[in-house]
Amino acid sequence: MNELDEIKSCGSAFPPEPAGEKARPAFGYTLHAQDGRARLGTVHTPRGDIRTPAFMPVGTVATVKALYPEQVRQAGADIILANTYHLMLRPGAERVARLGGLHSFMRWDGPILTDSGGFQVMSLSKIRKITEAGAEFQSHIDGSRHMLSPERSIEIQCLLGADIQMQFDECIELPAERREVERAMELSLRWAERSKASFERHSKAGQALFGIVQGGTDAELRARSARELVAMDLPGYAVGGLAVGEGHDVMLATLEGVLPHLPESKPRYLMGVGTPEDLIESVRRGIDMFDCVMPTRNGRHGLAFTWGGRVNLRNAKHAEDLSPLDPESACPAARDYSRAYLHHLMRSGEYLGAMLLSWVNTWFYQELMAAMRLAIAEGRFEAWAAATKERIGRKG
Amino acid sequence: MNELDEIKSCGSAFPPEPAGEKARPAFGYTLHAQDGRARLGTVHTPRGDIRTPAFMPVGTVATVKALYPEQVRQAGADIILANTYHLMLRPGAERVARLGGLHSFMRWDGPILTDSGGFQVMSLSKIRKITEAGAEFQSHIDGSRHMLSPERSIEIQCLLGADIQMQFDECIELPAERREVERAMELSLRWAERSKASFERHSKAGQALFGIVQGGTDAELRARSARELVAMDLPGYAVGGLAVGEGHDVMLATLEGVLPHLPESKPRYLMGVGTPEDLIESVRRGIDMFDCVMPTRNGRHGLAFTWGGRVNLRNAKHAEDLSPLDPESACPAARDYSRAYLHHLMRSGEYLGAMLLSWVNTWFYQELMAAMRLAIAEGRFEAWAAATKERIGRKG
Repeated sequence: MNELDEIKSCGSAFPPEPAGEKARPAFGYTLHAQDGRARLGTVHTPRGDIRTPAFMPVGTVATVKALYPEQVRQAGADIILANTYHLMLRPGAERVARLGGLHSFMRWDGPILTDSGGFQVMSLSKIRKITEAGAEFQSHIDGSRHMLSPERSIEIQCLLGADIQMQFDECIELPAERREVERAMELSLRWAERSKASFERHSKAGQALFGIVQGGTDAELRARSARELVAMDLPGYAVGGLAVGEGHDVMLATLEGVLPHLPESKPRYLMGVGTPEDLIESVRRGIDMFDCVMPTRNGRHGLAFTWGGRVNLRNAKHAEDLSPLDPESACPAARDYSRAYLHHLMRSGEYLGAMLLSWVNTWFYQELMAAMRLAIAEGRFEAWAAATKERIGRKG
Repeated sequence: MNELDEIKSCGSAFPPEPAGEKARPAFGYTLHAQDGRARLGTVHTPRGDIRTPAFMPVGTVATVKALYPEQVRQAGADIILANTYHLMLRPGAERVARLGGLHSFMRWDGPILTDSGGFQVMSLSKIRKITEAGAEFQSHIDGSRHMLSPERSIEIQCLLGADIQMQFDECIELPAERREVERAMELSLRWAERSKASFERHSKAGQALFGIVQGGTDAELRARSARELVAMDLPGYAVGGLAVGEGHDVMLATLEGVLPHLPESKPRYLMGVGTPEDLIESVRRGIDMFDCVMPTRNGRHGLAFTWGGRVNLRNAKHAEDLSPLDPESACPAARDYSRAYLHHLMRSGEYLGAMLLSWVNTWFYQELMAAMRLAIAEGRFEAWAAATKERIGRKG
């Protein structure tokens, strides 16, 4: 697409920030433009700016799977996410700190966001016990026993050196009784207070702690969670506990209920989401940041996102197709290799298949965000969103 | 090592070849210099020159595992090897031909050597029956029945478009009765004649067929095999059926018996070999070409070859070692990442670990060949070999 050349220089269309450390806060958010509820902005961190709406590739155990760090940066990512739960178990937070922190360990010099570990304790660990104090659990790797509390989660995130850290929260499985959703939401609010206190003790200048709105799909609980977190005056807010099986429409309805309660002056992050259509509809409602394993996980399974629609490279129809995967993409893997070759690599279970398709999908997600930023800047987000959803929704 | 800068321009030290297509045969070998029995040469092919001694990275199913083709080239490889057995089963030789041949399929524009499939029929297929006609076998992938004969093997290699093709041979397991070794060697000679006849029908100008010397570890059988093959006047000769468990010293003794029977004017290829020490000792005896899965397979298992010795990255002693894997290597993976990070990646079973160590090892093998070429050119191979074996034999 021709607009991509423009997108590359999109940031320069905005008035330059005043120079000097005092003129710009070490962490902050600038809202450049709005188109409907869609927001174009910049999150400022000491390690560099994050152009929003932003998609954060997931580097679970200190690597974005099957990609060199240079490829993640070249795809257009300003920030990546890493997982507290995985890194505390292996190689261990204290070890990463002794080695100089996560950035130099994994050779990513841009900002890093870490989650709190709460979600993985629920989804991955073998045995867990949630109390007011925190979560006791057994490692999914070796069965060893561990404790995560708000204090320990923040301590770990500071040891890793994360630029954006997340409060410790309890993520429950949906559907659940309202009473249970309310209990977990209120516990998460108390944990937010404790996370904030711990963050104030351990963090460095320029690092930021985000609160996480919980409350399932209940509008009243979500609103209460948002109001209480906003009262804590945190530098950013996330919406958690969605994309866990409730469905696209329920997720969007929940978002619509939450977002009016969050301040316009701070970034809003929708955790663990999602498909390209999810991203478009969430940006349309005012979300600024996303993370999801979908581009890399789907890539490893042979599913590609392209500007012409989704493509399952394992499908036999590609076996003798000499056309490239996506001539509209700027990713070398989408242009230089034939579908026939990619099909062969996936059928053969070869590393290079996972490497190429993870690259294609990571690049596609960044191009999608860049296209959204451009559409917002030019005040044509609605038309762009409708046209884009139509073309990328096809089966290629 | 400082000599590496020089090695990069090593080829230019030799007198330029006369220009024009007629002046240089489409396929040929030039012997530039000898140091003892070690030979410095060039194998000429229409797809480019191969600097010898040469190591061919193995691209079994049309990919050198866990590497982009650009990385293989940048490491210094002039030629790669692909496997007839694997490619005939998936994606199929006729399919590769319809797609334009193996070179464009896998994006490798340099020369490619294919083996005949004989070795894999023995080592991989479930059921096999060897007759005068050829080998019947069942696919290790789906159990389907196939037949490989000298005629079909060459037809497949021509369909793939291989620049250097190998005669079909029977590889038996060692140790074996002399009678059995002799029977298989004589069958392989008859198959060489049939391979040659098939090659003359199917091949294109500039492609070359190599014969394979068999005969186990029996000097008399090996000599007879070599003499009969040389009488067929093939453009190159391989030594097959070694490095199958007979041990380093027996392998070298067998080589010493064979090589005097092969013409000096043609390239000599030792199949499926081997460790860095194997390569040095074989070059010392007059071998020009090698292939082996060791650099990539060891890389996937966490074993690295470095100029300071072998390193097992899975070893706990590397867990907090911030030093690079090999500061003497020019490979980015050996210089830019810490041993601690590589250790973490291998322990976590991450793609990037296999990617980085396959890259390091592939690069090391190419640097080793370049260093050998330079040492031969400068007439100091013996001293270089002794010093190099000492340093790379360490446990790092």
